[in-house]
Amino acid sequence: MKIYLAGPDVFLPDAIEIGRRKTAICGRFGLTGLYPLDNEVDLAAPDASRQIFGGNEAMMDAADVIIANLTPFRGAGADPGTVYELGYMAGRGKLCLAYSNDPAVYADRVRRFLDVTSDNGRLVDTQGLTIEDFGLVDNLMMIHALELHGCPLVTPAEMPVDVWRDLAAFEACVRMAAARLIAT
Amino acid sequence: MKIYLAGPDVFLPDAIEIGRRKTAICGRFGLTGLYPLDNEVDLAAPDASRQIFGGNEAMMDAADVIIANLTPFRGAGADPGTVYELGYMAGRGKLCLAYSNDPAVYADRVRRFLDVTSDNGRLVDTQGLTIEDFGLVDNLMMIHALELHGCPLVTPAEMPVDVWRDLAAFEACVRMAAARLIAT
Repeated sequence: MKIYLAGPDVFLPDAIEIGRRKTAICGRFGLTGLYPLDNEVDLAAPDASRQIFGGNEAMMDAADVIIANLTPFRGAGADPGTVYELGYMAGRGKLCLAYSNDPAVYADRVRRFLDVTSDNGRLVDTQGLTIEDFGLVDNLMMIHALELHGCPLVTPAEMPVDVWRDLAAFEACVRMAAARLIAT
Repeated sequence: MKIYLAGPDVFLPDAIEIGRRKTAICGRFGLTGLYPLDNEVDLAAPDASRQIFGGNEAMMDAADVIIANLTPFRGAGADPGTVYELGYMAGRGKLCLAYSNDPAVYADRVRRFLDVTSDNGRLVDTQGLTIEDFGLVDNLMMIHALELHGCPLVTPAEMPVDVWRDLAAFEACVRMAAARLIAT
């Protein structure tokens, strides 16, 4: 069983090492992790970004499962690039798993970045846009997609000291994927 | 031809009116716009968020096309909920169109929110995470997915005064969808 390892991990300075650790965890469960940085691309090429896209899409098409890192990225919510990949895999009917190392509720997290006010019982941000307030960790589309197309989002009881390098929640996802493999 | 109208528009205080305007534009081109707010849900119900998800997914499954509003939302990038839907529709093999009313390059937009520095030629944010610097408007996964699974992202030459209510770029997407319909 091949697992596409999606996440903003690829933007970390030690992205390669994180990928090695993630694929090693998959290996311990008898699974094959596919990490996007394995697509070797010459970043100076004029079509580098298109090559990366093509490599990632081919890797997703080759995978049976996605484990997406939805830890909040540059703001209150998950990395849109990772979320695109989660949606793509759900659309393709693949098994969808994900984790976030920040267990806070979305509305509370928005408060860290923006002034949040109440307008007739509706929580709104500084632009007057509604803030989802269902007690979920992120946008309802991802949260319920995981329930329907895989397993519920995995979060730690408390945010780990190093949100980008603690892989306990990731490992819990791998364990769930392995359990599915045995069950089918 | 049915078009799923994705976007953070549903979070606007005048979300219903925006939906009316969008579906009216679709109608003028002989197309049917499906707007998520048409899924009537009792927001006080304990499973309200799951009902919204189910309604949106059923609407996407009924649609042939998605037009996603990728205008930056609560930060430098697109709304993750909308991006999930774009990925889902791409995975299902539907025609993917999108627009953003902010034509700025992603890396420049990050500068509005965070200190951006250079680390050995790599642009990094305050957490040391790489900032994509390919001259694209948002994450490469969405930008190139649109090229491959539909039409390139539509952006205005200049950001309109009201980014949430100017529908010129949206209308350009509808026109492209209608042209595809005639061509096939």
